[in-house]
Amino acid sequence: MEVSGAPADVLLQHPWLPVSISGCQFLAKIWFGDLEYHILLTDMMCVWEERMDSAAIQERAQKLNRRVRAEVKAFFSHLVEVVQPCLSGDGEPAEIEAQVTLMRREDGNISMTLNSKLAGLPFKWEFHCTAAPVTLVCAQLVCPLLAMSRLLQRQVEQLGGLLLRKDAEIQDYRENGATLSRERLQTDVFEEQTYREDFMAKALPLLCSEQTDARGFDATLQHLYAAVIAQANKRTRKRQLSEERPVEEEEEQPDASPSSGPGSVTNREQSQTKMADRAAVQQSVPATSSAAERPSSKPKKKKVGLFR
Amino acid sequence: MEVSGAPADVLLQHPWLPVSISGCQFLAKIWFGDLEYHILLTDMMCVWEERMDSAAIQERAQKLNRRVRAEVKAFFSHLVEVVQPCLSGDGEPAEIEAQVTLMRREDGNISMTLNSKLAGLPFKWEFHCTAAPVTLVCAQLVCPLLAMSRLLQRQVEQLGGLLLRKDAEIQDYRENGATLSRERLQTDVFEEQTYREDFMAKALPLLCSEQTDARGFDATLQHLYAAVIAQANKRTRKRQLSEERPVEEEEEQPDASPSSGPGSVTNREQSQTKMADRAAVQQSVPATSSAAERPSSKPKKKKVGLFR
Repeated sequence: MEVSGAPADVLLQHPWLPVSISGCQFLAKIWFGDLEYHILLTDMMCVWEERMDSAAIQERAQKLNRRVRAEVKAFFSHLVEVVQPCLSGDGEPAEIEAQVTLMRREDGNISMTLNSKLAGLPFKWEFHCTAAPVTLVCAQLVCPLLAMSRLLQRQVEQLGGLLLRKDAEIQDYRENGATLSRERLQTDVFEEQTYREDFMAKALPLLCSEQTDARGFDATLQHLYAAVIAQANKRTRKRQLSEERPVEEEEEQPDASPSSGPGSVTNREQSQTKMADRAAVQQSVPATSSAAERPSSKPKKKKVGLFR
Repeated sequence: MEVSGAPADVLLQHPWLPVSISGCQFLAKIWFGDLEYHILLTDMMCVWEERMDSAAIQERAQKLNRRVRAEVKAFFSHLVEVVQPCLSGDGEPAEIEAQVTLMRREDGNISMTLNSKLAGLPFKWEFHCTAAPVTLVCAQLVCPLLAMSRLLQRQVEQLGGLLLRKDAEIQDYRENGATLSRERLQTDVFEEQTYREDFMAKALPLLCSEQTDARGFDATLQHLYAAVIAQANKRTRKRQLSEERPVEEEEEQPDASPSSGPGSVTNREQSQTKMADRAAVQQSVPATSSAAERPSSKPKKKKVGLFR
């Protein structure tokens, strides 16, 4: 496996796309650069990755397709064309027919084989994915999921507060003699502790009997993931700017842009890609993705990175 | 580093305890067995671990304390006595004075040094923590955090539904001419989409400017983590039992026990420990904690393990 200069922050902007390969459910992120790629796969039990640069792609393409003579550019553009629909999450077959099979190896690694046709000849590609570095798993999953949990927890608390206010309003109407025209409209008084206990008792067993694999990361959570990443990215850029021009620290201002409506997905994703591009350009600190690359021996006060 | 037979499922039952070492915030899990231990540490950027068995403990204790002559049992019980208060999360000093210092190494690993006194003589211990296997990170953090997010998301949806019902009740009172005695009790109609957009715009920047490190995993989330793990564990045991005695599959019954009140923590933790012990005994499948230990080359239909 060749380690190329895959921009970790750009990959972070990508959504985790649900893919089904050989009957297994995975979440995938794939980034194609200029004759290089970085793929991430997870079944939530492990996370695998492969980073390949131009030379490695050329070598593997030749090795797997001895009868096909082509430049690395031709191999690569064919690969992009074939792989992207397979890993686009919508599960729709590519226009160019391609078969993807997955094999879990004895050593825990996985191989994903892709069979298609290039200029009429059979074309084969293999992704050799090995366990991703823990720091990458933390950046791509642990930190965002923790931020999402915190955000949702806060929302739960806020909605609980709103319910108490609704009850106070209802109580006032009732105390002033108001009655309901339709009895079925009457609600129970919201009691936070009782509600939570009841919710946990009912929802928890259901949740655990449902999709606990990659499919559990559903569209709503994907949306939240994107919003959390976009915000962390915005914050990183602000820090970088303020470190470049040290003025008095700006206060974070609430920003009205991250709408959560399903209709705004495409717009958000587009703007995220732009942000990601900008972030990649402005990123002055090397994106470390392996524990072995950590340089510091002392805790730093001012870390520049997402989720810091 | 010696790999001992640390029961992964037992460690899973342990809560992540917030600890502050050398000015850095970490979450820690530590399990002491019979002359063996397994420690996990995370700063949410990486996860480190060390597993040590009797022989390895004896060797390191002798190497670090040449002047102290004692059996491994004496070293170990002193270690347990000293370490547990340091990593108990409450930050209270141990009765036996001990100093803990942390060093991040060039290679990304961390060393935690503990200085105390054993029978009047200086006693030194070092934890040499290396990056944890990705499968362990997935089991201990990724899966539980995803389950927590799903649970909270469902709660948000349910509370939204309750608010709509409250509004229908309020509307009915109003339509029948009811008025409020105190104007300030009047609430705005809950409009889910508008609320969510407003919440995201305000809460997201705040959240990201707050504790995004290990401290973000606060008591409420810890509580949810424990509940999710307990449920997954219960489900695993049910599956194991049904595989041992294959009768018609039992339906998951809502269980009223997982109360979420802060007062119930101790009881829950006690019962979890019992469950963990039972799980460890009943566990028939070896607890894999490293990608390299994965044996299968084909997807299994019936996986026995937490979160499956």
